[in-house]
Amino acid sequence: LVQRNTAPVTTSVDGLAAEIRRFAEERDWGQFHTPKNLAMALAGEVGELVAEFQWLTPEESIAVIADIGPGDRVRAEIGDVMIYLTRLADVLGIDLVSAARDKLAESARRYPIEGSRGSARKAGT
Amino acid sequence: LVQRNTAPVTTSVDGLAAEIRRFAEERDWGQFHTPKNLAMALAGEVGELVAEFQWLTPEESIAVIADIGPGDRVRAEIGDVMIYLTRLADVLGIDLVSAARDKLAESARRYPIEGSRGSARKAGT
Amino acid sequence: LVQRNTAPVTTSVDGLAAEIRRFAEERDWGQFHTPKNLAMALAGEVGELVAEFQWLTPEESIAVIADIGPGDRVRAEIGDVMIYLTRLADVLGIDLVSAARDKLAESARRYPIEGSRGSARKAGT
Amino acid sequence: LVQRNTAPVTTSVDGLAAEIRRFAEERDWGQFHTPKNLAMALAGEVGELVAEFQWLTPEESIAVIADIGPGDRVRAEIGDVMIYLTRLADVLGIDLVSAARDKLAESARRYPIEGSRGSARKAGT
Repeated sequence: LVQRNTAPVTTSVDGLAAEIRRFAEERDWGQFHTPKNLAMALAGEVGELVAEFQWLTPEESIAVIADIGPGDRVRAEIGDVMIYLTRLADVLGIDLVSAARDKLAESARRYPIEGSRGSARKAGT
Repeated sequence: LVQRNTAPVTTSVDGLAAEIRRFAEERDWGQFHTPKNLAMALAGEVGELVAEFQWLTPEESIAVIADIGPGDRVRAEIGDVMIYLTRLADVLGIDLVSAARDKLAESARRYPIEGSRGSARKAGT
Repeated sequence: LVQRNTAPVTTSVDGLAAEIRRFAEERDWGQFHTPKNLAMALAGEVGELVAEFQWLTPEESIAVIADIGPGDRVRAEIGDVMIYLTRLADVLGIDLVSAARDKLAESARRYPIEGSRGSARKAGT
Repeated sequence: LVQRNTAPVTTSVDGLAAEIRRFAEERDWGQFHTPKNLAMALAGEVGELVAEFQWLTPEESIAVIADIGPGDRVRAEIGDVMIYLTRLADVLGIDLVSAARDKLAESARRYPIEGSRGSARKAGT
């Protein structure tokens, strides 16, 4: 029986982190990858991602993936953001998914379902 | 035999995406989660993360996790960034890890190991 | 004889830059104000500004100033962004208004009026 | 008759705002320039500016202007950031320099000179 868990380890965040680490080591780029510099690189990539959406209406932003040029660019920018986020977490020794789940649990406490329904002011996480 | 693959599905990015989706649906926040708005939320969280590093020296940024107050804040901000990035990819129907791996493969072609070693100008991905 | 200099110097960008410089010097903060760090601080403040708008509809964003809580926060965040932008330009020896005007002139060449009217794709500057 | 207006109006922030307004109106781009969209455009430009500094050491960032390629790009990006910040303040009816000065006054109260000298933790404004 084929299961999703037979997927190669490299489809996980841990696998991705290891691939990026090797990519950086092979090029001797580890010296540039301080957390400070990686946070800046992450901000730069997020800036490019935001720029893809800046003039779109909310409706256009929902349909962006179907539009081949902008859709490809959005996917590529999301890939870039994920690369730097994964790398930053890796050099800091942080488990990305655990950090997100802990924060989500905190948000669940802060925004109980009753009292938060449909409120834009609280639509954070 | 214990294997990493026995870990619950929720430790994967797919599992995280499903948890965030349910969190948003329970609060009827899906209406606010257009790609445009989520890109902005992502930028906001990255801004908070960058702020944690802004006055640190490169060396201090490497040691930040050992410093309990700033270290906890950095981990929490990384969690927030991951939440919005995962949510954005989910509403767009993009596989986060695949998008990152495709981009990494492109960078490997663009920056061949020979000729890229130790060059700050090219220390992107 | 009335001269432009009768307007207090502090209402100009040059005056603002001088005030911020003195503020930093009095606190011995110049040591932290490298261009790299200031660019990060600027990104952090822009993140806070973007966060104010993230869940607003386009229409709500137009009316935000009339809403006293969010309106005050938006004005304060714009002030913070201007402080760090002015400071960054000052430490680099760049005239902020000249840099903007030069870029605007370049955009005018790149986007001639005929051919750019009403086109979202080009609505940059 | 000597007037403050003998200095060309365009060297002030007000003059710059008027030039950008005309630039947008001539191209019928006002429709895209909601505060929400302009905040995103600002974030995008700041991302490009941060990217210029991401791999530089603090020392290299201080010398960046003397390096003709990166120096020109930094000046151009600062120009772009100033354009969108000025435009955002203009459509919101906010005086950019006053907003900055008010915020600086608030910081002066929050960080009295005695007690703030040389402290990185407080090196904000």
